[in-house]
Amino acid sequence: MSRMTLFVMMAGLALGMAQATWARDTAEGRPLKVVVHVNVPEPGVQGAGLKNITNILKEAPDTQVEVVCHGAGVGLVEKARTDHAEAVEVLVEKGVKFVACENTMRQKAIRKDDLLPGVGTVPSGAVEVVRKQQRDGYAYFKP
Amino acid sequence: MSRMTLFVMMAGLALGMAQATWARDTAEGRPLKVVVHVNVPEPGVQGAGLKNITNILKEAPDTQVEVVCHGAGVGLVEKARTDHAEAVEVLVEKGVKFVACENTMRQKAIRKDDLLPGVGTVPSGAVEVVRKQQRDGYAYFKP
Amino acid sequence: MSRMTLFVMMAGLALGMAQATWARDTAEGRPLKVVVHVNVPEPGVQGAGLKNITNILKEAPDTQVEVVCHGAGVGLVEKARTDHAEAVEVLVEKGVKFVACENTMRQKAIRKDDLLPGVGTVPSGAVEVVRKQQRDGYAYFKP
Repeated sequence: MSRMTLFVMMAGLALGMAQATWARDTAEGRPLKVVVHVNVPEPGVQGAGLKNITNILKEAPDTQVEVVCHGAGVGLVEKARTDHAEAVEVLVEKGVKFVACENTMRQKAIRKDDLLPGVGTVPSGAVEVVRKQQRDGYAYFKP
Repeated sequence: MSRMTLFVMMAGLALGMAQATWARDTAEGRPLKVVVHVNVPEPGVQGAGLKNITNILKEAPDTQVEVVCHGAGVGLVEKARTDHAEAVEVLVEKGVKFVACENTMRQKAIRKDDLLPGVGTVPSGAVEVVRKQQRDGYAYFKP
Repeated sequence: MSRMTLFVMMAGLALGMAQATWARDTAEGRPLKVVVHVNVPEPGVQGAGLKNITNILKEAPDTQVEVVCHGAGVGLVEKARTDHAEAVEVLVEKGVKFVACENTMRQKAIRKDDLLPGVGTVPSGAVEVVRKQQRDGYAYFKP
């Protein structure tokens, strides 16, 4: 086997692995991934979104769900303002990730202690919504 | 030609075909694909969405459009409640796919016969919205 | 080096470059890309969207942002109707692309001169929202 052939084979393998990674993330049978964008204050819309997530997990239990709350939507994960503390808790226990936007928290003087248990934070909710789609291949869902 | 060379060539061809499939779906000149997410009850918003689809098909006639109606948005495709029976019918004839969420239908006691002609169903509207993006590479559009 | 090996190597290189292009667009460290979909008339929601963009550019300054205004959302970029002329101007100067839908403009009798400075147009806002995602790999964001 010539050095050239070896090089080509290695390149082919590298490409194959890259391709396989991409295929693994999109082929049927692998977990779905979705970022749920919550920026509205209406408890009804927020609750509908949580119910959508429950339904997603019923049909596709392995789905990776991240709920990004920012702007007027941060109330969903604030202890003092949410109408859905219990539903959020149940979903957190099922592995759903909830994050609040630190920009919004700063602006509204919300501290981490003010958030429901298990809720994380991200520097910017808007960037997170973009990054989950572009970097991590998440689908977008706006309740 | 050595066996190694043959192997590398076959691998290259396999990769090439996989790559080509991916390119075919995204390159200019191939049909666009979009999932239209309808979960709001307002006839005005629903009608604007249908008009958006009409405009899409005017500029890019080959576009594959799937309209997913769930939650409060299912009324768009219910005979008894829709304000847009005719517009839906026209779009169905143009090849637009409309589906209603079976979770929503169960909850609201809507039967398949209650849906406009040509409207299909899916087990979960929310999962469908995610799956079209992740599995089938559809763009997302919320009217 | 045989002709076959050369062929395989060239094919491998071509694939490698295609793969690299794809990887370049998605890997961490490369600019994010996002299409912001504005189709609502509420100045509050429009303003929140502009603030989201400002926050995105604060955390990820290289992000390519395109704001597509159509239907009831075109008012954001109309001189006579916007509540956010200054904020739009600031973002245009930062490189954010704003486009108005020509279908909407025709319907509402809006001329190019009626748009804020630096705002472009596209034949169809809805198609643009789809195309940016499918052709150019943009994330979707609805304020």
